[in-house]
Amino acid sequence: MNRSLSVRSGKASSTQTSPTHRKGFSFASLRGSIQPELSRRLYRLIKSTNNLISAHEAAGKERDTIARELSEWGEQTQDEAVSDISDKVGVILSELGVQEDNYAHNLDEARGVLKTIRNTEKSVQPSRDSKNKIADEIQKLKLKEPQSTRLVILEQELVRAEAENLVAEAQLTNITRKKLKEAYDAEFLAVIERAEKQIILAKHGRRLLDLLDDSPVTPGDSRRVYEGGGAARQVLNDAEDDLRSWDQNREEDFSTPKEDAKEINVVLSTAAPSTPVQADEGDEGSPDSSHHNEQIK
Amino acid sequence: MNRSLSVRSGKASSTQTSPTHRKGFSFASLRGSIQPELSRRLYRLIKSTNNLISAHEAAGKERDTIARELSEWGEQTQDEAVSDISDKVGVILSELGVQEDNYAHNLDEARGVLKTIRNTEKSVQPSRDSKNKIADEIQKLKLKEPQSTRLVILEQELVRAEAENLVAEAQLTNITRKKLKEAYDAEFLAVIERAEKQIILAKHGRRLLDLLDDSPVTPGDSRRVYEGGGAARQVLNDAEDDLRSWDQNREEDFSTPKEDAKEINVVLSTAAPSTPVQADEGDEGSPDSSHHNEQIK
Repeated sequence: MNRSLSVRSGKASSTQTSPTHRKGFSFASLRGSIQPELSRRLYRLIKSTNNLISAHEAAGKERDTIARELSEWGEQTQDEAVSDISDKVGVILSELGVQEDNYAHNLDEARGVLKTIRNTEKSVQPSRDSKNKIADEIQKLKLKEPQSTRLVILEQELVRAEAENLVAEAQLTNITRKKLKEAYDAEFLAVIERAEKQIILAKHGRRLLDLLDDSPVTPGDSRRVYEGGGAARQVLNDAEDDLRSWDQNREEDFSTPKEDAKEINVVLSTAAPSTPVQADEGDEGSPDSSHHNEQIK
Repeated sequence: MNRSLSVRSGKASSTQTSPTHRKGFSFASLRGSIQPELSRRLYRLIKSTNNLISAHEAAGKERDTIARELSEWGEQTQDEAVSDISDKVGVILSELGVQEDNYAHNLDEARGVLKTIRNTEKSVQPSRDSKNKIADEIQKLKLKEPQSTRLVILEQELVRAEAENLVAEAQLTNITRKKLKEAYDAEFLAVIERAEKQIILAKHGRRLLDLLDDSPVTPGDSRRVYEGGGAARQVLNDAEDDLRSWDQNREEDFSTPKEDAKEINVVLSTAAPSTPVQADEGDEGSPDSSHHNEQIK
C-alpha cells in the first residue's frame, strides 16, 4: 500500500485549472470545459476511465501477438519439446489476453453506471440555477420597487422552484449513492474475475513449463525424445475446464448483479412520488455517451 | 478459453514478411530486419513484450489519475459519506494501480531473461556460418583442385569448426530450455502476484462500499449522520496488513526464484567443459537491451 489514507490533493479548487492529461486539445477535451460545474469532475473521471479501458484492451491485443510470436519462435528452434511447449504456453498467454479484454469490457460497463450519476448532475443544475435566479430577482425588486405586486407572484414561483429543487436534490443524492456503489462494486468484481481466471491460467501455464526437461546436455549428446505432448494437451483441457467451472459457479452464486442497473427508475419514484423532475436518463445521445471505442478509434 | 490447442498460424514462413505491428518505420523496426536469421523471431517477441509492459504501465498511471479524480468529485458533492468513501475507494484504486505497475516491472524482468536466449542465438550464428563456409570451400576445392594439399588443412579446420559448433549448439539448447522455463515461470508468477494482491484490494474495496448507506431519502428529509469514518479507515488498515502478510508469506515460501537468473554461467560450463564459445552475455550494450522505458519514451 502507498500508506496514504487519502488520495485527495488538499486544494481541490486548483484542480480545475490543471489539465488531467497532457494530450493536447481535441474536441473531447474542449467539450470537457463546457460541462456544467456540477458534472465537470465526473465528466473527467469518466474520460480517464476510458483511457484505462484502452490500456487494458491494448494489453489484451499485445498478449495475442506475443502468443503467436512465441509459438513461431518455438517452431523454428526445431526442438520438438520447445516447439510444443512454446505453442501451448502461447495458448495460455493468448487466453490471458482474452481475460484482459473481458476486464476492459467489464470496466466499460461500470463506467456506464457512472454516466447515470453524471446525467443526473447535469439535470439538477438547471433546477438549482432557476431557484437562484428567482431569489435574485426578488432581491433586486425589493430594493427597486418594494411595493411591486410582482413580488407576490415571484415569491410563489420561488416556493414552487424550491419544492422542485428539493426533489431534484433528493434524486441526486439517491442516484449518486446507489450508482457510486454499483459502479465500483462492478469494477471490484471485474478485478476479482480477471484475477481468479488469470490465476487458473498461470498455474496451468506453470504445469506446462514443468513438462520441459531442462537438464543440460553435453556437446554431441542428443536429447531424450519428447514425450510430453499428451500431458501438455491435457493441461490445456484442464485449464479450459477450470475456467468453465468458474463461470458456472458464478452463475450459481450471483443473482446477476448487472440486472440492478435497470432499477434506476424505482429509486427515482421512491425519492419523488410526485415526480416533477426526471433524472435525465434519456441523455444517452450526448456526445460522449457512445461506446468508448467509437470515441477513441 | 478460445478452445484452440495451438496459436501457430500454420505457414510460419509467411510471418517474416508480415509486420508484427502497424507502427510505421522507426530505427527500432529497421534494426529488427537486420537481426541474424536465428534470433529474428525472438527479437520481435521481446519487442512485443515491451509493448505489453507499456500498456500495463499506462493502466497503472491511469488508475492513479482516476483515484484522485474520484476523490475530488466526492469532495465536491458535499455529502460527507460520499466524500469519505470515494476518497478511500480512491486509495484502493490507486493501490490497484501500484500493483499494475509492479506487474509491468516483473514482466520486464522476465523479458530480460528472454534476452539471454536471444544473445545466445546471436552468438551461435557465426559458429554455424563458419562451419558451413569451410564445408563449402572444401566442396569447391575438391572440384577445382582435387589434389590440393590445402584440402587436408581445410578438413582439419572443418573438424575443429564442427567441434566448436557442437558445443555452441549444446549451449544453445541448454540456455534455450532453461531460460524459456525461467522467463515464463517468472511471468506466470507475476500474473499470480498481481492477481492475488488485487483480489485482496478489491475485496476490501467492496467492504468500503458497504459502508455507504444508499437507502433512498424522500425530498426534504436529511440523511442520517455518517458514522462510517472509523470503519472505513480500518478497512484500509486491513488491506495494508493483508498485502504485507502476502509479501511475508512469499518470502517464507519461495527461495527467491530471481537468484536463478545469475546461474547462467553454471549451465554454460556444464554444457561445455572446454568452454570454447561463451554465450554472448556481455552484449548488453546492444541497441535494444537498455531498459524498455528509455527505448519508448
